[in-house]
Amino acid sequence: MLDHLPYGVFRRIGETRCAARWGDHLIDLHAAETRGSISAGGALLAPTLQKFLAAGPDVWQRVRRELLDLVSSPALAELLVPLSEVELVLPFEVADYVDFYSSEHHASNVGRIFRPGQPPVLPNWRHLPIGYHGRAGTVVVSGTEIIRPSGLLSPGVVGPCRRLDIEAEVGFVVGTPSELGTPVPPADFAQHVFGVVLVNDWSARDIQAFENQPLGPFLGKSFATSVSAWITPLAALADAWVAAPTQDPPVADHLADSPHLGLDLRMTVTWNGVEVSRPPFASMYWTPAQQLAHLTSNGASLRTGDLFASGTVSGPERNQVGSFLELTLGGTEPREISGQQRTFLEAGDEVLISAYAPGPDGSRIDLGSVAGKIRDN
Amino acid sequence: MLDHLPYGVFRRIGETRCAARWGDHLIDLHAAETRGSISAGGALLAPTLQKFLAAGPDVWQRVRRELLDLVSSPALAELLVPLSEVELVLPFEVADYVDFYSSEHHASNVGRIFRPGQPPVLPNWRHLPIGYHGRAGTVVVSGTEIIRPSGLLSPGVVGPCRRLDIEAEVGFVVGTPSELGTPVPPADFAQHVFGVVLVNDWSARDIQAFENQPLGPFLGKSFATSVSAWITPLAALADAWVAAPTQDPPVADHLADSPHLGLDLRMTVTWNGVEVSRPPFASMYWTPAQQLAHLTSNGASLRTGDLFASGTVSGPERNQVGSFLELTLGGTEPREISGQQRTFLEAGDEVLISAYAPGPDGSRIDLGSVAGKIRDN
Repeated sequence: MLDHLPYGVFRRIGETRCAARWGDHLIDLHAAETRGSISAGGALLAPTLQKFLAAGPDVWQRVRRELLDLVSSPALAELLVPLSEVELVLPFEVADYVDFYSSEHHASNVGRIFRPGQPPVLPNWRHLPIGYHGRAGTVVVSGTEIIRPSGLLSPGVVGPCRRLDIEAEVGFVVGTPSELGTPVPPADFAQHVFGVVLVNDWSARDIQAFENQPLGPFLGKSFATSVSAWITPLAALADAWVAAPTQDPPVADHLADSPHLGLDLRMTVTWNGVEVSRPPFASMYWTPAQQLAHLTSNGASLRTGDLFASGTVSGPERNQVGSFLELTLGGTEPREISGQQRTFLEAGDEVLISAYAPGPDGSRIDLGSVAGKIRDN
Repeated sequence: MLDHLPYGVFRRIGETRCAARWGDHLIDLHAAETRGSISAGGALLAPTLQKFLAAGPDVWQRVRRELLDLVSSPALAELLVPLSEVELVLPFEVADYVDFYSSEHHASNVGRIFRPGQPPVLPNWRHLPIGYHGRAGTVVVSGTEIIRPSGLLSPGVVGPCRRLDIEAEVGFVVGTPSELGTPVPPADFAQHVFGVVLVNDWSARDIQAFENQPLGPFLGKSFATSVSAWITPLAALADAWVAAPTQDPPVADHLADSPHLGLDLRMTVTWNGVEVSRPPFASMYWTPAQQLAHLTSNGASLRTGDLFASGTVSGPERNQVGSFLELTLGGTEPREISGQQRTFLEAGDEVLISAYAPGPDGSRIDLGSVAGKIRDN
């Protein structure tokens, strides 16, 4: 964990500052840049990571090298703040939020539940990474209370959502922007993407089911999306790239990534402290580089702070799924949680999604976690 | 037109400033606030309208009163800049962009084209204003060149979009934010919405058709959305409210607006200078206040700069439709434009959408226009 050094933003005594995590402490990057231990051109003096994200790969690499030097130097001690003394806030301003649907197992499971008797995966699914835009303004930091949404559940029926669910996902944070009209090929992924967050894309299944046609999810998703407080830089995940599943049919040229690699992030979902699933991110059919290439293939530009999430991560096994819809087969097979038979989320429920990845020399990179607790209005 | 006074942002000699339009001139609001003719607490000294939008209804009203005084005072002359000397830029930073689908005629026309033999309007359509999130980062100001997108048109077929279309819409710009977890009722519309822009939601019909299931439009829309350079404040449209079409079945309580009013905006679409349609905004089934109430009914918060658009405005007649998909019946009935038989957009085509509204005492409020020209890559 010691060379993981994810980035975040903390608040203490009215001040908001950038930080890197160091065990159960953080390194105050405002102080580090002020003292000259870190040189980010002033970007780390800001109260969000936005300027640092925008500074691009050369600055990201230099600051990481400086941080790795710093943590083995005597200067470190004066820059450390115990995590217990701070509040962690949303580490960046989300520009556009895109949510993909890139797990074949998830798409198949959902297809079987929502469209029984039909082919579970639609004909377009293997030709492009299906995705849609979510609401950037309701992306919240881990720990933010999730208020159960109300809405139209069927014609004339309005009320609190009865099928409140999670979606365990991995999100990618864009640093370097791109020009309108110029697609970003898969090979340029690391030029634009700074790092990784864990995502819980809370989902109101009944609201979603009624509104979904013909324009897709809207209020069923837009009430809240939680992200981890720490962004793990791609640089910390160099040992986590693994061959992604073979794609058949072969994808269009502009989506072909070579090498075709996914990230071996091993996720865990706990529900009121009970581990219910271990979604394997390495099983995703579409890779992050393909998602980015698709997203920009029509010429759409990227902005600093764009967030694109993988879609629900589900492996082939029942104990590897990233939603309770799948875990309980659409609510038909309750799951025992602390002695209770449970399907969807109830008031007071807490969900925690965490993940780790292989690091150098058999070590383990801990990506932290994204947590949320349900409150009924 | 003289008391219309829409707001925008201009660039001249490297400087970017807020302005109000005054005929073929603009009023330099940076200069006006500096000289004390306008008192917006410094909000109009910024290079976008964001701070002024955030300042809320009391400031909007005071500044409008001050502007109405200013235009009849001798001080005006020194603040005027000819429009011919400036470049108009995007007048606000778009936070989240939501696009509705609120014309019953449009929804029916599209349903007949895309789902022949089935009921043209889906069962949920009269119960809630269907909508989805678009890409905020690719909202561009009127006059920006539109680059034809490429993409997957069908399995294995990649290439430039062949069915490039327009959608003539009206957009609403949010000023005052709202709290996460707290819906905004229809009655609070004017507390949050500052004004109106015209919108052209460019649409790649073939890309959209292939990607659309199951999560809705994505790359078929996200390459560009054009908005007018001028925001017309709601205050200028006080005489334009008219009874909206009766809704049957009655809508849910949280969507019921009383009085149930739409805006009598009379739109015109020209294609290479030829008028092809006059979409009547007053015919929209769902009103702007209902759209805002729906958008926040699940507790989703508003941010300053949120933009929500009406969806394509189409009236009951063939010469009242807001898309070329409808104008040409899905491309099956070409339209003669300057001696050529035309269906969708070709390189060099220019589309201009304009609108006016009834003003006080039989006058006419001109909402300006949104224009775009197609370039092939």
